[in-house]
Amino acid sequence: MTQSDKFKSLPPGSTIGILGGGQLGRMLSLAASRLGFDCHIYCPKAGGPAANVSRYETVANYDDLDAIEKFSRVCDVVTYEFENVPALTAAKVAACAPLAPNSRALKVAQDRLIEKTFIQSRAGVAVVRFADIATLCQAEKAGERFGYPNIIKTRRLGYDGKGQIKVERSNDMQAAFEAMTGAPLILEAFAPFIREVSIIAARGHNGQFCAYPLIENVHRNHILHTSTAPAPQDDGRAADITRRIMEALDYVGVMAAEFFQMDDGSLLVNEIAPRVHNSGHWTQDAGCTDQFEQHIRAISGWPLGSTTPRHSVVMTNLIGDDTAKWDVLAAQPATHIHLYGKNKMRAGRKMGHVNRVGTAL
Amino acid sequence: MTQSDKFKSLPPGSTIGILGGGQLGRMLSLAASRLGFDCHIYCPKAGGPAANVSRYETVANYDDLDAIEKFSRVCDVVTYEFENVPALTAAKVAACAPLAPNSRALKVAQDRLIEKTFIQSRAGVAVVRFADIATLCQAEKAGERFGYPNIIKTRRLGYDGKGQIKVERSNDMQAAFEAMTGAPLILEAFAPFIREVSIIAARGHNGQFCAYPLIENVHRNHILHTSTAPAPQDDGRAADITRRIMEALDYVGVMAAEFFQMDDGSLLVNEIAPRVHNSGHWTQDAGCTDQFEQHIRAISGWPLGSTTPRHSVVMTNLIGDDTAKWDVLAAQPATHIHLYGKNKMRAGRKMGHVNRVGTAL
Repeated sequence: MTQSDKFKSLPPGSTIGILGGGQLGRMLSLAASRLGFDCHIYCPKAGGPAANVSRYETVANYDDLDAIEKFSRVCDVVTYEFENVPALTAAKVAACAPLAPNSRALKVAQDRLIEKTFIQSRAGVAVVRFADIATLCQAEKAGERFGYPNIIKTRRLGYDGKGQIKVERSNDMQAAFEAMTGAPLILEAFAPFIREVSIIAARGHNGQFCAYPLIENVHRNHILHTSTAPAPQDDGRAADITRRIMEALDYVGVMAAEFFQMDDGSLLVNEIAPRVHNSGHWTQDAGCTDQFEQHIRAISGWPLGSTTPRHSVVMTNLIGDDTAKWDVLAAQPATHIHLYGKNKMRAGRKMGHVNRVGTAL
Repeated sequence: MTQSDKFKSLPPGSTIGILGGGQLGRMLSLAASRLGFDCHIYCPKAGGPAANVSRYETVANYDDLDAIEKFSRVCDVVTYEFENVPALTAAKVAACAPLAPNSRALKVAQDRLIEKTFIQSRAGVAVVRFADIATLCQAEKAGERFGYPNIIKTRRLGYDGKGQIKVERSNDMQAAFEAMTGAPLILEAFAPFIREVSIIAARGHNGQFCAYPLIENVHRNHILHTSTAPAPQDDGRAADITRRIMEALDYVGVMAAEFFQMDDGSLLVNEIAPRVHNSGHWTQDAGCTDQFEQHIRAISGWPLGSTTPRHSVVMTNLIGDDTAKWDVLAAQPATHIHLYGKNKMRAGRKMGHVNRVGTAL
């Protein structure tokens, strides 16, 4: 019997703590409210997208362990909207309240080297070829092994294309390596994929598992542009792989796994996100349980909800001033609008998304 | 050109003021947040279902006109979740901010005598026979005209069966009249209806109108038990009647009209509610725009959303300790749960509802 078998389901009226105050926290909070929960947002900045729709708010830094302890003690379960929760913070939370997903999931997802090693060796799942490169010499050797182009990435804190450089030729390796200014690095082989797909899945305290159908993702400027679900040609392999990873982590909550699908049909795990994920936003208007409610159900010990969509959906992100055309979007009958209540528009910033509903399934 | 033609659409980030802090305010706030609005709840009691999911809260009595003015001045539009907003309060709001629906809708909906007179004479729509009964003598005469049983009702503040007595025989009239202890009264003929139906419709500042399909309602102990949509045998008459009433009121927002359908198919208006309505909760999980978002769209000058459901839905209210079985409900795949975050359970109190999704349309 694992620790999590003992978790007692939280009745409506319980308090869900969420580390992070952005749009994922906001949509988690809205979904939790629908189930009759109260939400408590922990965020260094006051009055953000999540806190503005939540009952309680703690404004403090993530490394303020006293504030973390005080916060955790008034929550019935604590979760997070981002994977870069510091290890000491996660440990402090876990000492005071149930933390879901667990700190192991955080540790694995925070570091590309640990992540890929874990997925490959512990979950037995294929990933893109990678190498730990502590020195330029190691980087050059790995570059020779993988061929060019390849991609140099920081092990930590990369997202939406930040913290990575595509290295086109061996002559460019030194400049790329030095541009990373001493951060721990990893070199990845370039994967000439034919498409990018992802799986959103959930796992409960009791081990109950369910996955939504395969999602096909298109990026623009390294930021997710559209997600289409269900994606064509879903043979269930991606969901199986995701399940193996979640079981290896004794994971509780919603997780996203991103894959490269190759010419021969094979799937390589690109990365995992121990949280609700942008490529799962389509679930909000698909007629099944949305990923935000699913995450709240999973971490609260509720039965997981249906993951079977009733119709196809295409999700499109609204980036920067895309939201200026809200009136045009609002006039489209099959378009469901989700805006994040961010008060400052910035180029490249995710401001909202739309779900366009298609044919019945 | 009417006043409302001049209304300028509110962009995301605007503030919606809501008078009332219960479950309707809560669900309005959740829907407004989805569109990127901030909500400001005005309620005499702190920390209720609506305030707990909203950015701003004013705690003051409805007759505190200074507080009402201060509140209204920081809102871009003000609406309400209940029809018993005092006339002076509504007037004060309207002097400081756009009020939608307008105070005329409030005036008509607050008083059964004014309501029925207006619907019959101004909108030209059939209602159940009624009489103004200021004295016992008038009550007895009206009772003779209408026959027995008939129903004596307070003109104001009745809901969920409160403020009404069914009078079975002429001998009971005096006791019933006196039990009402001096409140202004109305006598209504008993309508031997074959079913109760309702329409949820919306009208924009520019006169744009749309209605959801007909809804069939079943009450238990005078409280709504289930709403089924689309109801069978909808020939569009109920929506037409609702439209006439809304146009006569120059109404902006979502309105509900409740009807008795008689043996011969004819429809009598029972009452109207100048707000989102319990019999429209099914729209949340029908795949179209839900009534809460529709109301926010209408009062904010946005285009109205789709009112065409993608599948049938049966809404069932969770009353009193019905919510104790949340775990059973959560395990039903086609059941969508909506709980109101009320901290005190009381017999007869609406604590939540479920929407059970049926066949595709």
